[in-house]
Amino acid sequence: MTKTKHYIHQYETEAINNDGVNGVAYIPNGLAVVVSHPLENTPGTNPEQLLGLSLSTCMSATLEAIERENGFPHLAEVRVHVSMVKSTDGLDFLVTARIHIPHMTHSQAIDFVHQAELRCPVSKLLSHSGHYTVEVVDDFDQ
Amino acid sequence: MTKTKHYIHQYETEAINNDGVNGVAYIPNGLAVVVSHPLENTPGTNPEQLLGLSLSTCMSATLEAIERENGFPHLAEVRVHVSMVKSTDGLDFLVTARIHIPHMTHSQAIDFVHQAELRCPVSKLLSHSGHYTVEVVDDFDQ
Repeated sequence: MTKTKHYIHQYETEAINNDGVNGVAYIPNGLAVVVSHPLENTPGTNPEQLLGLSLSTCMSATLEAIERENGFPHLAEVRVHVSMVKSTDGLDFLVTARIHIPHMTHSQAIDFVHQAELRCPVSKLLSHSGHYTVEVVDDFDQ
Repeated sequence: MTKTKHYIHQYETEAINNDGVNGVAYIPNGLAVVVSHPLENTPGTNPEQLLGLSLSTCMSATLEAIERENGFPHLAEVRVHVSMVKSTDGLDFLVTARIHIPHMTHSQAIDFVHQAELRCPVSKLLSHSGHYTVEVVDDFDQ
């Protein structure tokens, strides 16, 4: 028996790119960004950076909600590293989210990050890719 | 026997968000974007839009490469729709990439889009999520 999924619709948006790697990507009546090839020294952002900005914001916002639910202020810092690599499978992005939550025990931070990983919609989209890792760090320089 | 994977490293970047849903997300020495809650009427972008910009640029750039390999100019237009929905699984993003390639038969467009889906790194990351769809359209108003 197929299980029907029920969704409550909350928000929708659309992003447009007609230019390819060199040009502009934009939200109608919203943000427009200049894009350029990551390996060329021309001004502009690229899919790697935009994905990193999306995931870091989603994880940070989700951690903020979890922190507040547990009586904490928002302390979590999120850094998302995106690498473009080439293999026999073609081009791939490897995505690592590193998270530091100051003034909290390591095990409490791990618990919060684990919850965030399962709740943040961008994290959920990436979780079956085989190219996504989440790390709790005590120090970003480690 | 484990198969070792060999990657040739091409590019890397990092995105940072310490603010959560209201504040700034940024690339060190690069793009900074104001972010805000998608359901609040405050200026700013959000993870949905940033993901849409990332995927639309990646798919458009990949289609551009495929078009050129086949002797075409870059004609493909990519629109990525991202919905935030709530269900018993919590919040999810549903992602649909709609692609129109003018001056090409529908079957040729389907062939190019299918190749792009398998080559674009952002598309590859989303392909196992169960929440990602790619559509070829003859007209965006259909």
